[in-house]
Amino acid sequence: MSNSTVFFKNKPRISSTFTIAGPKEGASSFGKHFHQLMADDRFGEDTFEKAECKMFSTCIEKTIESSGKKTSDINAMISGDLLNQIISASFAARDFEFPYIGIYNACSTFSEALALSAVLVDGGYMKNVVAVTGSHFATAERQYRYPLELGSTRPPQSQWTVTGAGGALISDKGNFPVIVSATFGKVVDYGITDANNMGAAMAPAACDTLVKLLKETKTTPKDYDLILSGDLGALGSRLLKKLMSDKGFDIKNHTDCGEMIYNIEEEEYQGGSGAGCSAVVFGSYIYKKLLKKEIKRMILMATGALLSSISTQQGESIPGICHAVVIES
Amino acid sequence: MSNSTVFFKNKPRISSTFTIAGPKEGASSFGKHFHQLMADDRFGEDTFEKAECKMFSTCIEKTIESSGKKTSDINAMISGDLLNQIISASFAARDFEFPYIGIYNACSTFSEALALSAVLVDGGYMKNVVAVTGSHFATAERQYRYPLELGSTRPPQSQWTVTGAGGALISDKGNFPVIVSATFGKVVDYGITDANNMGAAMAPAACDTLVKLLKETKTTPKDYDLILSGDLGALGSRLLKKLMSDKGFDIKNHTDCGEMIYNIEEEEYQGGSGAGCSAVVFGSYIYKKLLKKEIKRMILMATGALLSSISTQQGESIPGICHAVVIES
Repeated sequence: MSNSTVFFKNKPRISSTFTIAGPKEGASSFGKHFHQLMADDRFGEDTFEKAECKMFSTCIEKTIESSGKKTSDINAMISGDLLNQIISASFAARDFEFPYIGIYNACSTFSEALALSAVLVDGGYMKNVVAVTGSHFATAERQYRYPLELGSTRPPQSQWTVTGAGGALISDKGNFPVIVSATFGKVVDYGITDANNMGAAMAPAACDTLVKLLKETKTTPKDYDLILSGDLGALGSRLLKKLMSDKGFDIKNHTDCGEMIYNIEEEEYQGGSGAGCSAVVFGSYIYKKLLKKEIKRMILMATGALLSSISTQQGESIPGICHAVVIES
Repeated sequence: MSNSTVFFKNKPRISSTFTIAGPKEGASSFGKHFHQLMADDRFGEDTFEKAECKMFSTCIEKTIESSGKKTSDINAMISGDLLNQIISASFAARDFEFPYIGIYNACSTFSEALALSAVLVDGGYMKNVVAVTGSHFATAERQYRYPLELGSTRPPQSQWTVTGAGGALISDKGNFPVIVSATFGKVVDYGITDANNMGAAMAPAACDTLVKLLKETKTTPKDYDLILSGDLGALGSRLLKKLMSDKGFDIKNHTDCGEMIYNIEEEEYQGGSGAGCSAVVFGSYIYKKLLKKEIKRMILMATGALLSSISTQQGESIPGICHAVVIES
């Protein structure tokens, strides 16, 4: 079997980040870390979808601005979101003159974007690539599950889709945290059919990717200050710990963006999820820790559940995927 | 402004292709070129969506098989389709042990997949990458427009979504056609709001990418044996010729996969479209011409219309995009 990990020799840097989040995310104890908070979920727009799109364009603009670069320095944007035909990313791309590379791997889209951006910069093909992903509770809920107006009861295994977008500028130069490798994940399907139980659907894929990463980079969990999954949530995180333990790995230094983003006393049950979850947690609190060198070496592994409402209606199970990058300060 | 074109020094090869198409596509005069034809649109499955997924997995398997390689030689698949959350690609990926990189740029996904595969192979990150895209008339029609059972009348500016999937294996070695450069397109939106008029929505993006490609590669249309767009259709192709003419370029050697795939006397009006259109036309007839060196140098530029049914319902216009690759025999 071929390796799943690619190594970067030229140290593609994460030269800036920007995060924007909704009022609920802002109100949690984690909220103070975000760069910008929206006053309401509509962000001055007519529809939630247009608000999500505006989050993306704001995030792209501010990610570039905070790096001190100009939009004319940017070679491309790599972006995706949870909406059908990734319209938030695609419509946001209208506002910019640089090329647009659309991607989709559900909530693992953020680490997929970082990995592909790092390939393009490391290989010398581009100098500056903006990776941006996001999600919106209101648009995701009505697309994947039920109309918001129904006021459906949420089951205890569910997670809450994060309203937020996070961008990272990957550049060829500067004294910034570096992406040293990327491990592209394969699809793993344990036959979970409950569209409210994303954690269980994604944990096996996270385990598969993490085991490959450790093997192919010849490292152990202890070699990292942090192993950060995207949005497994509390239940999914416990499942990952168990699955890794079964394989002989003790991941004490693992935590999950979905577990961090909301206060435990709130009613999101297993925590946050969505393509924005890992993007806003990484781009705010975690990136600052990397800049201060309080984190020296970490794994960011966002996980995705590759379902659609059609696949669920047709009785399909939920395939999971997880792409991982190793980042050093 | 930064360049949109990336150049490949290590000659990433297109070492095999495979195409599979539906009965309607098979019945046209172009049909004899496809590697495999489905006896019916269901392909032995319960639903059209599952049939589309099976087209993908068949296509991936046979693309690898026809190259003489084993699945264990494959480093990754890059794939996308038109369905919500690209489920055809994602569910097909379950059948394989190699990593899955999901992408989406509507009908330009095929050239996006070729471009990213070429980057991964040229940069030395991977040795063999399968690029595969496809579409299915029945799944696309009911998702983007109306239930099939309505029997809606099609307007004369409409195109017919191709039922088919095409795969290409991009490899680092061998005496095969070579991808020499890729031009990543930006989103262009001329304000078209008619979801039946994809050609008009995509032609401006095709023009933008083609002008950049010619400028950045320092070539003229005459330097190519063929300039092949993905699925502009007859109307969109005429618009592209006009837009290019306005910029001072005469593209006599331009043709369009959507114009080639069906017989003119059939009732698809402007021709074929869909993420499968350029994939099956390129992977069959065109690839054989490259192998025989009847085509020495060509541009493949698949175009995409980045709409969703939600964006149309919310009154949005249709952004277009076009990614292009230059291929030499």
